[in-house]
Amino acid sequence: MARYVSLEHIKFLLQEVHAVHDLFQLDKFSHLNWEQAWMIIESAKQLADRDMHPFFREMDVHNVHYEGKGGVKTHPQLKTIIQNGAAQGWISGSAKLIHGGLQLPMMIFNSGHHIFSSANNGAIGYMSLTAGAAALINSFGNEEQHNLFVPNMYDGKWQGTMALTEPQAGSSLSDITTTATPIGDGYYKIKGQKIFISGGQHEACENFVHLTLARIEGAPAGTKGISLFIIPKFWPGKNGELTYNDVFCAGDFQKLGQRAYATTHLVFGDQDNCKGWLVGEPHKGLAYMFQMMNEARISVGMGAVTIAQAAYYAALEYAQERPQGRLPSEKDPLKPPTLIIHHADVQRMLLTQKAIVEGGLALSMECNRQFDLAHGANDNEKQEAWLLLEILTPIVKAWCSEQANRSAALAIQVFGGYGYTMDFPVQQFYRDLKIYTLYEGTTGIQSLDLLGRKMSMEKGKALALLVTKINESIKQARSHEELRDHANLLEEEGKRITQVLNHLRTFIEEGDVDRYLSDATVFMEMMGNIVVAWQWLKQSVHAQAQLKAKHFEHQQREFYEGIIHTMKFYFRYELTHAEACAKTIMHPDYLINLKQNEVLF
Amino acid sequence: MARYVSLEHIKFLLQEVHAVHDLFQLDKFSHLNWEQAWMIIESAKQLADRDMHPFFREMDVHNVHYEGKGGVKTHPQLKTIIQNGAAQGWISGSAKLIHGGLQLPMMIFNSGHHIFSSANNGAIGYMSLTAGAAALINSFGNEEQHNLFVPNMYDGKWQGTMALTEPQAGSSLSDITTTATPIGDGYYKIKGQKIFISGGQHEACENFVHLTLARIEGAPAGTKGISLFIIPKFWPGKNGELTYNDVFCAGDFQKLGQRAYATTHLVFGDQDNCKGWLVGEPHKGLAYMFQMMNEARISVGMGAVTIAQAAYYAALEYAQERPQGRLPSEKDPLKPPTLIIHHADVQRMLLTQKAIVEGGLALSMECNRQFDLAHGANDNEKQEAWLLLEILTPIVKAWCSEQANRSAALAIQVFGGYGYTMDFPVQQFYRDLKIYTLYEGTTGIQSLDLLGRKMSMEKGKALALLVTKINESIKQARSHEELRDHANLLEEEGKRITQVLNHLRTFIEEGDVDRYLSDATVFMEMMGNIVVAWQWLKQSVHAQAQLKAKHFEHQQREFYEGIIHTMKFYFRYELTHAEACAKTIMHPDYLINLKQNEVLF
Repeated sequence: MARYVSLEHIKFLLQEVHAVHDLFQLDKFSHLNWEQAWMIIESAKQLADRDMHPFFREMDVHNVHYEGKGGVKTHPQLKTIIQNGAAQGWISGSAKLIHGGLQLPMMIFNSGHHIFSSANNGAIGYMSLTAGAAALINSFGNEEQHNLFVPNMYDGKWQGTMALTEPQAGSSLSDITTTATPIGDGYYKIKGQKIFISGGQHEACENFVHLTLARIEGAPAGTKGISLFIIPKFWPGKNGELTYNDVFCAGDFQKLGQRAYATTHLVFGDQDNCKGWLVGEPHKGLAYMFQMMNEARISVGMGAVTIAQAAYYAALEYAQERPQGRLPSEKDPLKPPTLIIHHADVQRMLLTQKAIVEGGLALSMECNRQFDLAHGANDNEKQEAWLLLEILTPIVKAWCSEQANRSAALAIQVFGGYGYTMDFPVQQFYRDLKIYTLYEGTTGIQSLDLLGRKMSMEKGKALALLVTKINESIKQARSHEELRDHANLLEEEGKRITQVLNHLRTFIEEGDVDRYLSDATVFMEMMGNIVVAWQWLKQSVHAQAQLKAKHFEHQQREFYEGIIHTMKFYFRYELTHAEACAKTIMHPDYLINLKQNEVLF
Repeated sequence: MARYVSLEHIKFLLQEVHAVHDLFQLDKFSHLNWEQAWMIIESAKQLADRDMHPFFREMDVHNVHYEGKGGVKTHPQLKTIIQNGAAQGWISGSAKLIHGGLQLPMMIFNSGHHIFSSANNGAIGYMSLTAGAAALINSFGNEEQHNLFVPNMYDGKWQGTMALTEPQAGSSLSDITTTATPIGDGYYKIKGQKIFISGGQHEACENFVHLTLARIEGAPAGTKGISLFIIPKFWPGKNGELTYNDVFCAGDFQKLGQRAYATTHLVFGDQDNCKGWLVGEPHKGLAYMFQMMNEARISVGMGAVTIAQAAYYAALEYAQERPQGRLPSEKDPLKPPTLIIHHADVQRMLLTQKAIVEGGLALSMECNRQFDLAHGANDNEKQEAWLLLEILTPIVKAWCSEQANRSAALAIQVFGGYGYTMDFPVQQFYRDLKIYTLYEGTTGIQSLDLLGRKMSMEKGKALALLVTKINESIKQARSHEELRDHANLLEEEGKRITQVLNHLRTFIEEGDVDRYLSDATVFMEMMGNIVVAWQWLKQSVHAQAQLKAKHFEHQQREFYEGIIHTMKFYFRYELTHAEACAKTIMHPDYLINLKQNEVLF
């Protein structure tokens, strides 16, 4: 079987870089230790090897499609994947013990999902979604709601979804129009349409539990008037019988990639007979939903570099096996061709991929750690972790998804013409990845969140904390002579953040919030670039410590040296572009303001 | 019908920026004037509107595929396209009058092909290939060969191809093994396999004329022992009867995109009965083939930004029609949503696309002009044009194809989730484009050509000429106060070329050619960035002159202002990255050398 994921790198991130053992000291996770946690991850790999990876390409070819009359055809393997995944706890895993979960740290739970995504990214979304929907019910629903829905969701029998997007509103949730009319006892009559609902209908589950945003009659306009409802496709009765709730699947979007993953169009209440159940208080739906969205954003960022990793390993394997051409210094055409991995440009492409993938995974795992601390540490540490998580979430989503696409394009390039054919998997990774810059908030939306909300949140405390963390890594790196130059370089690059923000703040002072935010995406590119450089330096500190301690086998030496080498590569080939982003932002021309666009296109 | 190409921009490039009227002064093109030339281009647009664009998406869905027994199924419209295209002269157009062509300047001929590519990129390749193959016969074949093959090729009855790639050799032409055994009179028995042969078999033509590279028995090793053969699928007899020549199509590669374009696997001489006809002298095949390849490289670069342009117009149209969200300064959710084109980030994405597309087209047209001068001017000017063409060819191929892919990704991003669905055309542009960084020499190959051959050719004369041309534009720009700052900026950026080359030359002096070439692709990125900045400045000089002269309608004012605005955008958002590339190249670490790779992956 082709390598598609690196357990070695996961272990390095968990055990060394992001110190998962800290978590086992917390009450919340004290029922676990490292050996158990690692066993859980290894069993995920076995599951992925057996049930998921062998079906990856087949589920793309025999893709999900609408059959008419509300039915969506899915690959038969999907049911096996969901059932066996559920049985191993990969839906309930991160839920609390009292909710029927395993109360795993997100670091462990998402390591499993990382393995699944790398094996078959179109199939694993179903489970992640159900986990997220159940978590929403656990957090904001009542016990009755929990008991009625969650156990079947955790068993993989019922699919959970998040139903936000509407045709006319897209990313603009303040404009959603699905209506909810009270009919008493917390129940509402629902009417409206939702599109792009992942997992909204398929053949592997018998019921669908849609966590849906809608507007209660008379609610305030905008996002302050949105409420959250549970709308099952079938209402369960006392004896488990299921009654149709007028949730009709009107179509399944055919897509560039992720063709194993249903993307449905749902119609609620076409027969005027759709009943929803309010979750929590009225008008707080968006705040509730953001719990799910924030977790999903980390998963999307991590999932993107995960797919890029699978593409990278495919390219690496090909480069190690394919003889072609000779080095420029070798002029003799009678000499046998060299393996293409010996060509400098192929190495550059492979190292770029490694730098993106393992840098992105380190950042993702940092987010998982902060998530776990924010939900399990003591109050002080909790608050810190929460702030760090808030500022890192848009970055991990946007940077990882953008760069993963670039990475997969390079994987195709390593294959040459073969990479463009359907005979190799890289084209599928490339297609699958394109959605990651779009769903759970586009790169543009993440960038507005970062610059518009997160940079200034709690008077800049989140940013100050991030800078403190970066400086800690710089300090640690300085204690290794081999890393000193790069520590200094990151310190210099880090100064750009303040410099750029000082420049941008003049627009806020002038009351021009549109201009302040106009280059948010370039700012995101710069921030992502610097933050991932931090994660590379942090990884290198741990790798260097291991190399000095010399407690490792030969193969591990290569692993640690590879980490440091890739850090150097990242600093040389990628971090250099942060300065260009800063220059772009601080340039005096204002070229993307509304008033001018009529002459431009 | 959706806008997919800009006749206005083509006219601007031809008439103003690249002064096509200079060509009509030359003997070679004195049979033409501007009015005729423009009429020819307008008729191309009519043909594209009628025969090509309406079938673009359909020919992707009902894609080319192998039927077994040597047959390749193609869309019925393909025959109409080729026949009507041929009748209008779009195969023979650039050939000399004495060869039965229209002797059009490449500036005009490729303007037509640009329109066709933007309408239906998978369909037009068939004609371009036939044109290129016929040109090879005209240039290096004898009269008998011309008479036997070319007229039917120009009529669109017979398909021409270029058969280079072999399964084991890929880009490394020195390793091809197809053999040619002499049987007298310039004929050879051929045996071998070729893959990725575009247009190698389909239903729209009755014969296939494969311009094939093979090795004559006993030929020197490497590229010096390669000869060029005409190998038709059927040999034409005296009365026009066709006799099978043992050229068997063994398959059609299924691809990520360009699904209307056959990509075949050909087997020559499986029955030991395949006869080829030597073109020109033995062992000079590669040099001959490079005529075709160089022209094809310009076409591929131009074709890539052409597709990106169609994607850009699709995104632009969507952005002008789709209401969603509000500006950051608008807090009232009761206000109606704004069109998404009013969002700064959408404008940034659109302007990035415009900058890539129109910058790339300007560079492509520069190459076409130099091509025409190199083939039609007086001796001195000819030599200059040839040198410029030599240095610009790898740049236009690599920069345009890489950036066009980025551009199409942004087009999807403008559409949001809809862009990922098969309901909109942007996903097809995105898929179609990925091959452009691969065929006719990958980006890596182009970069080695640029840094390894072109920078030093004729003792650096090509580079010196390019710098002179850039400086001419800078000087002209300085005469307009509005462009002075940007002229100065380009001058500064241009200095990086010398700086970087001086750094790299130390490796040559040390005899380390591998290291000298190791960052060729980063060098290409920098060079492309600067060269396209030059084309933007050059376009702006002409736009500014028009604005000053005030000889235009209102709509034209917007066009010219749009050019200058996009130039400023390019300088601010793109040119800034040239410095980062230079820094990467001049960094002291050497991280992609053979000896280290064992620890990296």
